[in-house]
Amino acid sequence: MTTSTQIQLVARPTGWPTHDDFRTVQVDLPDLAPGQVRVRNEFVSVDPYMRGRMNDVKSYTPPYVLGETMTGGAVGRVEASTAEGFAVGDVVLHQLGWRDVTQDDAAAFRVVPEIPGVPLSAYLGVLGMTGLTAYVGLLEIAGLREGDTVFVSGAAGAVGTAVGQIARLKGAGRVVGSAGTPEKVALLTERYGYDAAFSYKDGPVADQLAVAAPDGIDVYFDNVGGEHLEAALGAFNDFGRAALCGAISQYNETEPAVGPRNMGNIVTRSLMLQGFTIGNHLEHFPAFSRDMGAWLQAGEVVFDETVVDGIESSVDAFLDLMRGANTGKMVVRV
Amino acid sequence: MTTSTQIQLVARPTGWPTHDDFRTVQVDLPDLAPGQVRVRNEFVSVDPYMRGRMNDVKSYTPPYVLGETMTGGAVGRVEASTAEGFAVGDVVLHQLGWRDVTQDDAAAFRVVPEIPGVPLSAYLGVLGMTGLTAYVGLLEIAGLREGDTVFVSGAAGAVGTAVGQIARLKGAGRVVGSAGTPEKVALLTERYGYDAAFSYKDGPVADQLAVAAPDGIDVYFDNVGGEHLEAALGAFNDFGRAALCGAISQYNETEPAVGPRNMGNIVTRSLMLQGFTIGNHLEHFPAFSRDMGAWLQAGEVVFDETVVDGIESSVDAFLDLMRGANTGKMVVRV
Repeated sequence: MTTSTQIQLVARPTGWPTHDDFRTVQVDLPDLAPGQVRVRNEFVSVDPYMRGRMNDVKSYTPPYVLGETMTGGAVGRVEASTAEGFAVGDVVLHQLGWRDVTQDDAAAFRVVPEIPGVPLSAYLGVLGMTGLTAYVGLLEIAGLREGDTVFVSGAAGAVGTAVGQIARLKGAGRVVGSAGTPEKVALLTERYGYDAAFSYKDGPVADQLAVAAPDGIDVYFDNVGGEHLEAALGAFNDFGRAALCGAISQYNETEPAVGPRNMGNIVTRSLMLQGFTIGNHLEHFPAFSRDMGAWLQAGEVVFDETVVDGIESSVDAFLDLMRGANTGKMVVRV
Repeated sequence: MTTSTQIQLVARPTGWPTHDDFRTVQVDLPDLAPGQVRVRNEFVSVDPYMRGRMNDVKSYTPPYVLGETMTGGAVGRVEASTAEGFAVGDVVLHQLGWRDVTQDDAAAFRVVPEIPGVPLSAYLGVLGMTGLTAYVGLLEIAGLREGDTVFVSGAAGAVGTAVGQIARLKGAGRVVGSAGTPEKVALLTERYGYDAAFSYKDGPVADQLAVAAPDGIDVYFDNVGGEHLEAALGAFNDFGRAALCGAISQYNETEPAVGPRNMGNIVTRSLMLQGFTIGNHLEHFPAFSRDMGAWLQAGEVVFDETVVDGIESSVDAFLDLMRGANTGKMVVRV
């Protein structure tokens, strides 16, 4: 009998989640039915979007069900299989989330190649939905053009570090990022190809952005919302475009935050703001895979991960992510 | 010697403009130089965008110059010409604005046909930039699709009355408008093809919109900004699109207004907001002219005008427009 350790949501957080909103359970897994696969996870993803799914509100993905195991991206190896096309040892991606061992019908899993020198966790980050989010948001949603000045908030996060590097590789004229600590700010310019960076804790975002991008910005990739979005609206040149990917500054607010006071700039400067959810843009995955695979092999894109050990630490990893304790993609090593 | 009566801006308004911000002058016009045209205006346009140009701030059009005559759309007849292609009596459009007689090089004027049964003032409204604004905003910026539910703020204005009718003609499933008086609200459903309408003065916009569009909205055409935009963001279905055309609720505010408290919906519902200025989209004029010409001749589009008499009344007409005293396009009859 195989036992699976799983993390379940048991209460909807008000404001910041706490450990009391979750429980850890042991589940005995039955024998595989025909056409099924059992996978031992190596890495499990924790992502900002999960906070939204903990609320019981209309959103792009349905809310998590109370009393059920948290779902989300994970990568592991096949441990047993009654399904064609899945051999023991194969690396597979799936969305079954916060558990050490999982099993389901074969359709729930996708076999992916192992790439020499690249850890499996990259499939949860720069080679997976995270990298695709950066790629699609920058190139398809915001329509990056050569020479554009690009501003990225949450730039040291998993998406942000990819955005900066993709912008540089695709011909941006200047790439500016904001983050929340001096260490992250240093990494942005030293490691991730940003031309300028600042900490939003050092002063008003608008003032620091004006210094970092004295000729204004053309593209804004928003992971943060709030004051950052207002600053971007103030800095935009005519025909500026914003890809709105997330608003982590708002996720744990219980009162609705006030919106930007300069919405009128959208009209007067012919600006475009577009929110997006990567699940609606998966048609770009093949082009992304080709580009990102080549960039990684050539060493033109680097990435960092913050790894937390143990499936029991998933909640801690998620809370650390919410607080910005990660650099690059936050993953749980099972 | 021909004398021209002209209205000039002499001070930048703080908040609501007053008569003290303008002066009326008499200008003696010299003889025409070769290649010039003198035009006696029949109608002069007053438009909400003009309020923005009275401020000395970065915008899509440069600020008005203090001490110079107000510019803007006007239509009149050629009174004298030393230019090829301009005969006395020809109807011409131009941008030379608030004056009874004007003259300039021929390039400043465009000869347009007289359409039987349609007053020349239509060239300042439904057949001109106003109609084009409605057409481009709805079809190109917001990308109207068949079956969409469309919400229009400032729906009884010159642009809004055209938007509702174009939406209906282009296959919208439901068209909802807001206005500021019971009389305007009645006109929206009785004359302009709106399926439902309400007065924003009768209660919170969000509550009234929820009743008028119980299944949510897909397209929002914003002439107003502020509370209306917040209500639209709250009512949007996934993949909703907003064409932001103006924010008359904000134009005379001296303090920046607070933005929508529900900006997060842009991400979670994959919304798109785009501001636009019609001068950047003139390539759609031929298609618009064909469509609108045919609709007017077939009686499928109706329009109203609020006509104020006398070039000396231009400031009053503009102030009335700012207060919403007009139904349909506000023009000055010279």
